[in-house]
Amino acid sequence: MGHSQRLQKIQAILKRRKIDAFLVSEPRNRFLLSGYLGQDHGIEESAGHLLIPKKGSPQLLTDFRFKIQAQQECRGCEVQLYSKGLIPLLKQLLPRSGAASLAFESHYTLHSTAIAYEKLASELNLSLVPLTGVVEKQRLTKSDEEIDSLKASVRLNEKVFQAVLPTIQPGETELAIALRIETTMREMGAQQPSFDTIVATGKNSALPHAVPSDTVIEANRPLMIDMGLVLDGYCSDMTRTFVPGEADDDYLKIHRLVRKAQLAAMEAIRPGISAASVDKVARRIISDAGYGEYFGHALGHGVGLAVHEGPSLSSRNRKYLREGMVVTVEPGIYLPDWGGVRLENMVLVTRDGSLNLNHDTSFLDL
Amino acid sequence: MGHSQRLQKIQAILKRRKIDAFLVSEPRNRFLLSGYLGQDHGIEESAGHLLIPKKGSPQLLTDFRFKIQAQQECRGCEVQLYSKGLIPLLKQLLPRSGAASLAFESHYTLHSTAIAYEKLASELNLSLVPLTGVVEKQRLTKSDEEIDSLKASVRLNEKVFQAVLPTIQPGETELAIALRIETTMREMGAQQPSFDTIVATGKNSALPHAVPSDTVIEANRPLMIDMGLVLDGYCSDMTRTFVPGEADDDYLKIHRLVRKAQLAAMEAIRPGISAASVDKVARRIISDAGYGEYFGHALGHGVGLAVHEGPSLSSRNRKYLREGMVVTVEPGIYLPDWGGVRLENMVLVTRDGSLNLNHDTSFLDL
Repeated sequence: MGHSQRLQKIQAILKRRKIDAFLVSEPRNRFLLSGYLGQDHGIEESAGHLLIPKKGSPQLLTDFRFKIQAQQECRGCEVQLYSKGLIPLLKQLLPRSGAASLAFESHYTLHSTAIAYEKLASELNLSLVPLTGVVEKQRLTKSDEEIDSLKASVRLNEKVFQAVLPTIQPGETELAIALRIETTMREMGAQQPSFDTIVATGKNSALPHAVPSDTVIEANRPLMIDMGLVLDGYCSDMTRTFVPGEADDDYLKIHRLVRKAQLAAMEAIRPGISAASVDKVARRIISDAGYGEYFGHALGHGVGLAVHEGPSLSSRNRKYLREGMVVTVEPGIYLPDWGGVRLENMVLVTRDGSLNLNHDTSFLDL
Repeated sequence: MGHSQRLQKIQAILKRRKIDAFLVSEPRNRFLLSGYLGQDHGIEESAGHLLIPKKGSPQLLTDFRFKIQAQQECRGCEVQLYSKGLIPLLKQLLPRSGAASLAFESHYTLHSTAIAYEKLASELNLSLVPLTGVVEKQRLTKSDEEIDSLKASVRLNEKVFQAVLPTIQPGETELAIALRIETTMREMGAQQPSFDTIVATGKNSALPHAVPSDTVIEANRPLMIDMGLVLDGYCSDMTRTFVPGEADDDYLKIHRLVRKAQLAAMEAIRPGISAASVDKVARRIISDAGYGEYFGHALGHGVGLAVHEGPSLSSRNRKYLREGMVVTVEPGIYLPDWGGVRLENMVLVTRDGSLNLNHDTSFLDL
């Protein structure tokens, strides 16, 4: 499904909801509907907004700095530049288009910006409609092309892991390894890491979101590597935990338990099962072994244009999985004074079950 | 000025404005007031919020994943974990503290989150106060310690530039050079680049925010490198444009004009001059030479914990510069079918003038 088909779906929703124009600000949503890859510098410094009318071609509103890139990349939309900010340009464009209502992305618009929209709407006598997750809902299930892109991203991520793995030596710091991983990603063709690479040794691996430090890799202690990259806009995400040197019985016990939970959850995934039920399958195995309180995060999350997107595999998500969804399955056990084990693969929900997108099996079955 | 002195200033403001509690979500503001370095994954995935009472110690509200890091890094504040999200935890904490009003950062809170705060405030019978830029105002002028940190960041950035410069060869791609710069930054001790490094050759340099591509560096054509890094939380930002090989007369003319504008603006900077006036000094020189329309961005921006912060050196900022502010001075001329020249230094506003924080003079005076 290309940009224009996605756009038609959104325009059908606008028509149904009697919305004349929809301002799309979330960068991946903007890309999905236009092909424009401009990089925002955080939410405060947008590389542009896509103004979608209920009928006809969208306009990409951006500033001078992004003019040439926007003209090169936007497919089927006109580029309009603002020099004094977005609001004055909207004040020109909206009356011209005859719009009587304007929707915006409530979940990707700052409160202060929404106040400026309210003022504008009142001046132009527009009704203002906050929407949440309308484009994200289109992103929950992936098209065949998107699945191919995700597979390629996973494959490259595994290649990077395999290239770096044999170079890791006890005595190196977490930071040095993380840097080598991210450099290798870029050298092998990734746009960028999809998140800050985690390399955590010993006790540091008890922090699920550890930041690589000057800590030296210890032999015979857990080493957790959580890494992902962006390739052609699509993300990958994989975690391996292992022991450089010799794993003791304590480690093997925890590792095998996490792996058992992961396999059971992957086995459970199919269209029609709720996300919460999949989480429960893994969580019960870990709880029954007495480690429930040490598995403090959700089982997984969707991956696509964003490395964290819907659906969440959490105990709070009662929604059903559907064919074409891609999720991580990443149970973990984190013991504060000892360390942690997390194992993470990416899984596609298929017509009648699931497909593990990872081919790398390093350290999974110890 | 340390975390606790900054905190006292904020608490004095709360008291004056009769606000009982202030929720700080912007990551640099959170760091400034607590010392906590947790990394957010965009605005949607916060690593925590700082709840500041008008009197007494703040609480750092975060989730399980950041527990250990928060406990290690937070100075003078208590760590509280939420497992079901921020709102349920606030619902417990706020009545316990007896707060009758709650402020939040309007410029760093999503509209959808603000709606949840409104609902909470109505349930708890709290008055809800959106604030904008209260902590950022404290960040506009830098303390002596902060200036030292910024100088160290600039110095390291220049060292990286000097290390990479002799290795650049015609025939290499923009991407390869950008990657080498960012890897060298990390190898030399930077936490990370402060923004995506720009390496743009030939016509690509006409895009002020060019993204490095597979384009091969051409001899005798402009090459623009815009790079910065984060060291101990503080950012640097520098641009050099030059010609590998031989610069022709067209290039020299544009380059010298940009440099003339930069020097004049740096000369003009002192406490008491308005930001707009400094912008005008540079802009007039470029306009008088007939290139005004090709200098489409502001002259500069503040740098500190964020690489882009206040004060903006733009024609729209009428505020006066003050001692202790640190700004970039970066005029540029961008000719669509030819290329661009931008030269950028970081400048400290001193008691009676300005101090150029850059020592690197490569390619400035051709």
